[in-house]
Amino acid sequence: MRMNTIEISTQSRQEFRDITAQVQEIVQRSGVQEGLCYLFCPHTTAGLTLNENWDPTVRHDLGLVMDALVPDRPDFRHAEGNAPAHAKTSLVGSQLTLFVSEGRLVLGSWQGVFLAEFDGPRRRRVLVKVVATG
Amino acid sequence: MRMNTIEISTQSRQEFRDITAQVQEIVQRSGVQEGLCYLFCPHTTAGLTLNENWDPTVRHDLGLVMDALVPDRPDFRHAEGNAPAHAKTSLVGSQLTLFVSEGRLVLGSWQGVFLAEFDGPRRRRVLVKVVATG
Amino acid sequence: MRMNTIEISTQSRQEFRDITAQVQEIVQRSGVQEGLCYLFCPHTTAGLTLNENWDPTVRHDLGLVMDALVPDRPDFRHAEGNAPAHAKTSLVGSQLTLFVSEGRLVLGSWQGVFLAEFDGPRRRRVLVKVVATG
Repeated sequence: MRMNTIEISTQSRQEFRDITAQVQEIVQRSGVQEGLCYLFCPHTTAGLTLNENWDPTVRHDLGLVMDALVPDRPDFRHAEGNAPAHAKTSLVGSQLTLFVSEGRLVLGSWQGVFLAEFDGPRRRRVLVKVVATG
Repeated sequence: MRMNTIEISTQSRQEFRDITAQVQEIVQRSGVQEGLCYLFCPHTTAGLTLNENWDPTVRHDLGLVMDALVPDRPDFRHAEGNAPAHAKTSLVGSQLTLFVSEGRLVLGSWQGVFLAEFDGPRRRRVLVKVVATG
Repeated sequence: MRMNTIEISTQSRQEFRDITAQVQEIVQRSGVQEGLCYLFCPHTTAGLTLNENWDPTVRHDLGLVMDALVPDRPDFRHAEGNAPAHAKTSLVGSQLTLFVSEGRLVLGSWQGVFLAEFDGPRRRRVLVKVVATG
C-alpha cells in the first residue's frame, strides 16, 4: 500500500479532532496484521498528537494550554497573523508512528489520535501508510 | 519480532526515568544488526523524550521547565486534576523512532531515552519493536 | 542503505536551518521510489522540526516563541548554562519520519525540514535513513 489520505474540515480556529476511527479503518482495510502505521500532516499550522479521547475536557484544557503557551506578540514578523499557529505546530509535531498488532492499532485505553488544528477553520489532510513488519 | 514491553514503576509526580539500558537490551536480544527501533508509550499522562542522561541536573531542570510551562489553572475542566500532565504529554510526545546499527542503538554521546512521567507515581509501560532494514 | 549523515555548521546561538534540499538529495540518491525517510538528531541541545520554509519570518517568530517559553532561571542546576537549550530540544523533538513517494519526499507546499539549533554555533549532524516499503 502506498498512501491513504484522511480529509478533515475543521470548524474552529483551534480544535483537536479525533481521527482514531478513520486511522483504524485504514489499518483494517490494509490487511496488515503486525506492523506500523505512519501518519503525516502536510500542513504548517496544524499537527498531530496523541492524548485522551474519552473525556472531552482533556481537549478543552489542551487548547487553553496551547493558547497560554503561545500568545500573539507585537514583535511577530509573519504577516499572516498566524505565527502562534506555526509555533504550536512545532511544539506538538506533525507526524506519528503507531504500532499495529492483530490487525488493529495499538493504543492505550484512553488514547486517541488527534489532528491539532491551530489556524482553522480549514480543510486538512492526514497521510497514512501502513507497513507490515512480520 | 512483534512487541516487547518495558515496565516501569515511577516514584514521583514528575520524573524522567532513563530507560536507555532496557531498550538497548531489547535491541541486542532482537539480533537486528541494521534497522530501526520504535518506542511507543500507551499512556496519556506520560511520554517519551530524548535528552542528556549523563548529568542528572538536565533532568531536574527539564522538570522545572515543564512545571513552569503548564501550571494548574482554575479554568481547567478535566476533573481528575491532572490536566497539566495531559498537556505536557502532548508537548514532549508519546513515541520515538531510533536507529540501530551494528546491533546497537545509535545515540549521541550524551543522549539517553527517557520515560517522562507527569502524573506519577504509577506503573507505566513502553512498547518496543525492532525491525531490520537491511 | 545504512545511514547517511548531513553535517551542518550553525552560525548563531539559536537558529532554524533549512535542510530540506540535503534530505531530498539523499532520498533521490537512494533510488527508493515508495518508502519512508527517517531523520535522527544525535544531539541534546538541537532538534528537528517541520515548519514553513517559504517565508523566513516564520523561523524568526518561532525563535521568539522558544526563547519566551524557556527563559533562563536562577534555579537551573545544569552548570553549562545551556539548560534552556536542553528543554527546547525535548519540546520540538529529535527525530522525524517522512514519507517518500515517486522518488521524492512528500511535504506540504510550504513545509520544510529544519535543524533547530538551540546552543550554537556548533557543528551538528543529522542521520538519515531511507527505506523502501513497496
